[in-house]
Amino acid sequence: MALTGVIRPGHCQLRVLDLERSIHFYTHVMGLKPMGRDASGRAYFKCLDERDHHSLILRQADRAGMDFYAFKVSDVAALDRLEEDLRAYGVATERIPAGELLETGERVRFRVPTGHVFELYAHKTDVGNEMGYLNPEAIIDGRKGISPIRLDHWQIHGNDLDGSRDLFCKVLGFTVAERALMADGRTDMAVWMSCSNKAHDIAFVRDARDDTLHHASFLLGTWEQVLKAADVITIHRVAMDMGPMRHGITKGTTIYAFDPSGNRFETFCGGYDFYPDMQPTVWTWEEMGRGVFYHTRELNERFLSVVT
Amino acid sequence: MALTGVIRPGHCQLRVLDLERSIHFYTHVMGLKPMGRDASGRAYFKCLDERDHHSLILRQADRAGMDFYAFKVSDVAALDRLEEDLRAYGVATERIPAGELLETGERVRFRVPTGHVFELYAHKTDVGNEMGYLNPEAIIDGRKGISPIRLDHWQIHGNDLDGSRDLFCKVLGFTVAERALMADGRTDMAVWMSCSNKAHDIAFVRDARDDTLHHASFLLGTWEQVLKAADVITIHRVAMDMGPMRHGITKGTTIYAFDPSGNRFETFCGGYDFYPDMQPTVWTWEEMGRGVFYHTRELNERFLSVVT
Amino acid sequence: MALTGVIRPGHCQLRVLDLERSIHFYTHVMGLKPMGRDASGRAYFKCLDERDHHSLILRQADRAGMDFYAFKVSDVAALDRLEEDLRAYGVATERIPAGELLETGERVRFRVPTGHVFELYAHKTDVGNEMGYLNPEAIIDGRKGISPIRLDHWQIHGNDLDGSRDLFCKVLGFTVAERALMADGRTDMAVWMSCSNKAHDIAFVRDARDDTLHHASFLLGTWEQVLKAADVITIHRVAMDMGPMRHGITKGTTIYAFDPSGNRFETFCGGYDFYPDMQPTVWTWEEMGRGVFYHTRELNERFLSVVT
Amino acid sequence: MALTGVIRPGHCQLRVLDLERSIHFYTHVMGLKPMGRDASGRAYFKCLDERDHHSLILRQADRAGMDFYAFKVSDVAALDRLEEDLRAYGVATERIPAGELLETGERVRFRVPTGHVFELYAHKTDVGNEMGYLNPEAIIDGRKGISPIRLDHWQIHGNDLDGSRDLFCKVLGFTVAERALMADGRTDMAVWMSCSNKAHDIAFVRDARDDTLHHASFLLGTWEQVLKAADVITIHRVAMDMGPMRHGITKGTTIYAFDPSGNRFETFCGGYDFYPDMQPTVWTWEEMGRGVFYHTRELNERFLSVVT
Repeated sequence: MALTGVIRPGHCQLRVLDLERSIHFYTHVMGLKPMGRDASGRAYFKCLDERDHHSLILRQADRAGMDFYAFKVSDVAALDRLEEDLRAYGVATERIPAGELLETGERVRFRVPTGHVFELYAHKTDVGNEMGYLNPEAIIDGRKGISPIRLDHWQIHGNDLDGSRDLFCKVLGFTVAERALMADGRTDMAVWMSCSNKAHDIAFVRDARDDTLHHASFLLGTWEQVLKAADVITIHRVAMDMGPMRHGITKGTTIYAFDPSGNRFETFCGGYDFYPDMQPTVWTWEEMGRGVFYHTRELNERFLSVVT
Repeated sequence: MALTGVIRPGHCQLRVLDLERSIHFYTHVMGLKPMGRDASGRAYFKCLDERDHHSLILRQADRAGMDFYAFKVSDVAALDRLEEDLRAYGVATERIPAGELLETGERVRFRVPTGHVFELYAHKTDVGNEMGYLNPEAIIDGRKGISPIRLDHWQIHGNDLDGSRDLFCKVLGFTVAERALMADGRTDMAVWMSCSNKAHDIAFVRDARDDTLHHASFLLGTWEQVLKAADVITIHRVAMDMGPMRHGITKGTTIYAFDPSGNRFETFCGGYDFYPDMQPTVWTWEEMGRGVFYHTRELNERFLSVVT
Repeated sequence: MALTGVIRPGHCQLRVLDLERSIHFYTHVMGLKPMGRDASGRAYFKCLDERDHHSLILRQADRAGMDFYAFKVSDVAALDRLEEDLRAYGVATERIPAGELLETGERVRFRVPTGHVFELYAHKTDVGNEMGYLNPEAIIDGRKGISPIRLDHWQIHGNDLDGSRDLFCKVLGFTVAERALMADGRTDMAVWMSCSNKAHDIAFVRDARDDTLHHASFLLGTWEQVLKAADVITIHRVAMDMGPMRHGITKGTTIYAFDPSGNRFETFCGGYDFYPDMQPTVWTWEEMGRGVFYHTRELNERFLSVVT
Repeated sequence: MALTGVIRPGHCQLRVLDLERSIHFYTHVMGLKPMGRDASGRAYFKCLDERDHHSLILRQADRAGMDFYAFKVSDVAALDRLEEDLRAYGVATERIPAGELLETGERVRFRVPTGHVFELYAHKTDVGNEMGYLNPEAIIDGRKGISPIRLDHWQIHGNDLDGSRDLFCKVLGFTVAERALMADGRTDMAVWMSCSNKAHDIAFVRDARDDTLHHASFLLGTWEQVLKAADVITIHRVAMDMGPMRHGITKGTTIYAFDPSGNRFETFCGGYDFYPDMQPTVWTWEEMGRGVFYHTRELNERFLSVVT
């Protein structure tokens, strides 16, 4: 595979209403590793198995939601080329200097038609995955909390789904893995898109509320770990949304719950591997309930209404 | 990710000593789906979840082993470009006409320095994954036998490991995910290489026996399915080599056993996702035992000596 | 352990509204083995791993619910002794002759204070567990549907919970493993009782609706099989009540769903082993939600209202 | 079930060659909870989920092995009755005063025909299972090391297997769940016996080496935890004997490894529930390999030769 271009979700900056309480939550309940604070007070975290310096940044704010979403690209040449391609497509870009985020190189920032701010970057310091790269052990013993493997994907909402979908497909090299159709049988209500072998690296849902976050998703390794995540969520009396459950869409298993600021997160496991030669899976309007929650076969009100 | 070029292991043609007995084995023990026979008598199989027409072809022969190994490429343009690149690199290529294998387009065939015959192709008929692409169910009920998800990778042996490794990296776009070093601390004894997000799509081991197969590997979804595979192997009194176990290398779980012709197969699960910006994991000579069999921490004689 | 007396739930006779449809359901969705019909038309089933001739009997009726619940006792001497003990306790008993149920010995029938009809019996033909007792295989390959290990327990409702609880503890040798208290902090709202090392062989819930069934529970071996059960339930569009989930009470994992007649069933896995020297676990009124559904921490209306 | 008599393995006193090193091993690798030292220097441990004060006692000695094996009985009346029954059967008994072991009541000690010292006792302080008995949480988060659920059973060796088997069955109320026969097709080579619903609470193997320990077994909850146990064993470079694997006998999954003194331990999971009305499973001499190690289908030399 020509491995140039966008490779994976790299980091995102989340707004939280009470920074200290959120740091406690992401450290002890989510089980992320705190990676320091920067001069502006932002708190950095990584999953234990992640190699790069951080994947989640918390910023104190007076409303919840996500400031920006970033993808890592394969190298600086790809970063430059993708910026050119974005401009050629008519998207304004901005360069954020290296070091503005800890241990992170220069970032190319732009806004997509659904109103969300995205970033691309080529460099972030490899701080290690707790197991090492020379004769490593196979697991990390004594994990606490949910302790996901990595930041996996985001589901985000906005009005001009077609615009964001096209930008991701035509400029950033994504492929649509699954589509959910509106009642007209033609218009995309939601799309799940991949820049890799994952069934989704990002999902867009058509929604009048531009620039909103439905959930940030963290990967777990097994269905047994999904059960443990649900147990941990209850032990800490975290607000639960749904789960454990299987999605019809992507076939993965899931829990949805809320961080202390009301930002929804998902702990996700499984699903199938996707390749760009595969035809997309299509869900019709009347099967949407089963598509989202495979076992209950119906959407719950909270799932539909709450975004941040 | 620019998803052009080599995308995944697509098919391989295995030599078997007793075709009817092997068809029985791959149907009822391995749990593959028989996809027909061609005019020359070859038998075709796919894993239930695979979408393309077949991934394994059995050919009656008087000695075991693998005739050829094929990767699917993203499209015809990639096929043409890769053939040019191979020739520019000094590799002779041959075109096998479309239809020589059932439901398969034109193939570009070439021999790599370790003596193995490889193929690239861009087209194979999508016959469906038993669940469909429109409002699909999430699982296939009533699977019998081992019933893997897909053909996953091969481990193959030959003398000029450096030559094959370089060809795969420099021409075919692979990245080395893990390396095992010889006692000199510099020379590769074995390399695990990826053309995707998998920790390996192919592994080469340095071995005086050119053009040999160590094992073909089939993917399972969970460690519980690995246990069931081992149970099925015993129920059918299949010759077991090793397992269930974890590999240090790739961190995946495994069983090795032998088909009725003595070809070793693996049922594999898990491991980590690999991206091309990751530095390779390195194993030193004295830790090779733990690298291969993480729990016993020693290589067994059979693992080292038997290839086909 | 002195292994005399009541040993386990043995069989139950379920009323169904459409016998043929129910036979199809219990055969192909629940994955039980049909064991024949008797002269009165009743249909018999066993779980594959069960050794005795049957554990579930379906009877065509014009309303759903359970006719009777039966425990196997260790031997005929225990049957006779327990009948004497019941009579001494003031419970009227009736002898049902051997053969009235296929392959089943004489049964002692009696009604408990919550209105339910119970039976004890000492003999049922051992027809084998599909694996044999001489050099057996370890698993049964190719299981279809939910395919539980055994009939595990029942949750049943009635007004005089105290009366039934006392009868089970004082006469039949059961021990209370868990109690859920009413708002007064003293009165039992529900009790989970064991005649074995299981955390429950039967549960009684205080409810004005005498002689009602909340659910019959079937045992699964792993949380992965619970997931598969939920998938199978959706594939067949079975009415789902709740799950997959963990119970706080018993700590087991669960799914609740409904058979075609509206009888609720559970597929249950795990929990802890109970011994009679253990003190009971107590749940207070305000923690009942978490006790029943550990992850959502709230009872749903359907769970509370639907019994048959 | 009349729950009087012997109920479960309660504790055992293990001889270790280096007490401090062994305390480190059982605390950090096995993941037991240290429960204090007594005046004679012995170190006490319990599994986290166990309720009674301890299940394992380590004693510094100059040779490995087990000093004694103890079963808890249901109450003092049962203790007295069983002592009478033992004496009536011709077995000499001794009373060990309460408090000789920490938090433990009076013990009845006796030697069985295979040379092993056994004990019965009715009281040990309930110190809690880390989750509590009032509105408990369902799991313990942050477990480290192997962290088993409980001491499960022992396999012990001696010459007069028939004598010990008969004593356990005729006096202590055990039932033979599985038997492995010698080449003559009649004589028991090994028996697995139950005093509960477990497929084995103790196993005896015929062996010229009287009063020897093959392994003490600790229970795990899932096959995934068996994998983790094997990973932990490797991380700590513990001497591995075999596994992960399934037993044919009992159908449970297993790992065998050695503590720092060379005492073999097992981490065990699963298997089937046993009831005293079930006929025993029988293994013939030529199928013993598959009976013990279901996947490799052969006994390894170490398994046969090493006892302590």
